[in-house]
Amino acid sequence: MSKFWSPRVHELTPYVPGEQPKVRNLVKLNTNENPFGPSPKAVAAMKAVVADELKLYPDPESERLCQTIADYYGVARDQVFVGNGSDEVLAHIFFGLFQHDAPVLFPDISYSFYPVYCNLYGIEARPVPLTSAFEIDPADYRCDNGGIIFPNPNAPTGCFLPLMQVEEILKANPERVVVVDEAYVDFGGDTAITLVDRYPNLLVTQTLSKSRSLAGLRVGLAVGSPELIEGLRRVKDSFNSYPLDRVAQAGAVAAFEDEAWFRDSCDGVMAERKRLTAALTDLGFEVLPSMANFVLARHPDHSGEVLAAGLRERKVIVRHFNKPRIEDFLRITIGTRAQTDALLGALKEVL
Amino acid sequence: MSKFWSPRVHELTPYVPGEQPKVRNLVKLNTNENPFGPSPKAVAAMKAVVADELKLYPDPESERLCQTIADYYGVARDQVFVGNGSDEVLAHIFFGLFQHDAPVLFPDISYSFYPVYCNLYGIEARPVPLTSAFEIDPADYRCDNGGIIFPNPNAPTGCFLPLMQVEEILKANPERVVVVDEAYVDFGGDTAITLVDRYPNLLVTQTLSKSRSLAGLRVGLAVGSPELIEGLRRVKDSFNSYPLDRVAQAGAVAAFEDEAWFRDSCDGVMAERKRLTAALTDLGFEVLPSMANFVLARHPDHSGEVLAAGLRERKVIVRHFNKPRIEDFLRITIGTRAQTDALLGALKEVL
Repeated sequence: MSKFWSPRVHELTPYVPGEQPKVRNLVKLNTNENPFGPSPKAVAAMKAVVADELKLYPDPESERLCQTIADYYGVARDQVFVGNGSDEVLAHIFFGLFQHDAPVLFPDISYSFYPVYCNLYGIEARPVPLTSAFEIDPADYRCDNGGIIFPNPNAPTGCFLPLMQVEEILKANPERVVVVDEAYVDFGGDTAITLVDRYPNLLVTQTLSKSRSLAGLRVGLAVGSPELIEGLRRVKDSFNSYPLDRVAQAGAVAAFEDEAWFRDSCDGVMAERKRLTAALTDLGFEVLPSMANFVLARHPDHSGEVLAAGLRERKVIVRHFNKPRIEDFLRITIGTRAQTDALLGALKEVL
Repeated sequence: MSKFWSPRVHELTPYVPGEQPKVRNLVKLNTNENPFGPSPKAVAAMKAVVADELKLYPDPESERLCQTIADYYGVARDQVFVGNGSDEVLAHIFFGLFQHDAPVLFPDISYSFYPVYCNLYGIEARPVPLTSAFEIDPADYRCDNGGIIFPNPNAPTGCFLPLMQVEEILKANPERVVVVDEAYVDFGGDTAITLVDRYPNLLVTQTLSKSRSLAGLRVGLAVGSPELIEGLRRVKDSFNSYPLDRVAQAGAVAAFEDEAWFRDSCDGVMAERKRLTAALTDLGFEVLPSMANFVLARHPDHSGEVLAAGLRERKVIVRHFNKPRIEDFLRITIGTRAQTDALLGALKEVL
């Protein structure tokens, strides 16, 4: 606490990201990184701009990247916004679109950064309980609100809400922005970007950290109606003119252009997810049906906390959330075949 | 305007950065980039991390970079904060340290992003006029305020305020944070970082965009007392866990480690500044005494706007601010010898 801080700073409860261990000999299945790595074409494009030209500012509008994303999804340039990771995009959304005199709704079990943003900007947060099957029920999103946000597939459950039900939420809230956070959509879900031209209140966010395996580069995006994008641009241009460096812009463009690598990578994750799910089930775990690059699983006889600690002793790290309703679970990132085998081997020792 | 926007968004007046032209055959002297380019060691360090490991998140705390900066300046690790360009660092400062029930003070002629941040966060901005010699007078910063910020050297004037006068401002405002924005300090000024251990209310910001020629990479920093840094960290961790990508962290560390390149680069800029200042004076310009990598200059017989347009026609771009008191001036970035010659040749045609 300090007399120099703005009063709100005293009340902040910052987000705590998953551990980024400093040692290298761990089987790291705790932060949903994609083990297949970025497109070699993206790597080549980035190497090419790591040069003398870094003396010049980047394009503040990330024009080429936005056009690439627009072409990829068949939308207009003015329907695309990019930022320094989807976390920055989300922060601008909470600031620019969610500060109204009503609470923002999101699932009670969801991305734990949402209430942090609310706290940062003094927005009332109203968590909406998932059903007992850990699913979103659109009927629960019909109350007065200042905005709605949910991941789809949800995290850390992995459950996907079909687009018809997303549309129910959109139709019930025509005066408020509904944000579908698609960080994990490429592993089997359907993107709501196909709906943006029909719903001016729909904003879809994505990241290059998961399906495009560029967590270390920090690029996120939003697609929606031009008026929503313009709102975000006004905030961005009042915060930081140049959120994306030259390397990130070049790498992101090339990543979107390498569809073959992207497809193979997503297919690889989905295949390994199927294998892991079956193996965990064989070990007695209950595994929620996941459309993401992780699974949420619990064992009837072992607490999540004890399992996570046991795995950690065996140099396998997974994520355990000490939170109501999911404290018994482990969230396990889909890794390579070798990583899955290492995890299963360690689990057999622990169980 | 949109019903979906937060009310504040309607009132924003975003910052307008200097043009980043899409064509390449221009003599670009408009955004204070450093023509000597980044350290080859920094380039090598960045190329080394552009690889498969970009699949992993970066270190959210930028631990190695913060320690490198701490060692460089002889301060403790917990006195250092880094961000995605100094613009992001400044945004967090306005949010985290300047939201009090009193106006924030800054010079009337100064970095034009300051009032934009005030507007973003609903902070009252109170510009304090520079003297008739375009200098900061510490006596003008003795009124009630919620914080003080000024560039040193100031921009776009280039004038440096000696540290003894900076201390006058610090001593007169022990209850408020005083931010010295040292984007341009390495071109002949003295850093106020030497004062941070004596003034808990002092925060110094710097950037790697100018003296370290990495504008395209987006790295900025702040140094101050641990309590100020802790305030910024709380905001950062409520906004974006990973503001610096892996490439930026690696490049920034290597840039701080290559002191010889840094010194040569700054010396080169200062030598060229001397030559340009003399040549402009010979052409009849009044040139403010600059300690930055630009000069602010006006000609008694030609308006700044007309001169800038004439230069532009000759493929030389400089910056003209259509603002009171400096509308007659041009702000000209210090370029290479060849760029200076091209500028002078074009000016002789225009005058």
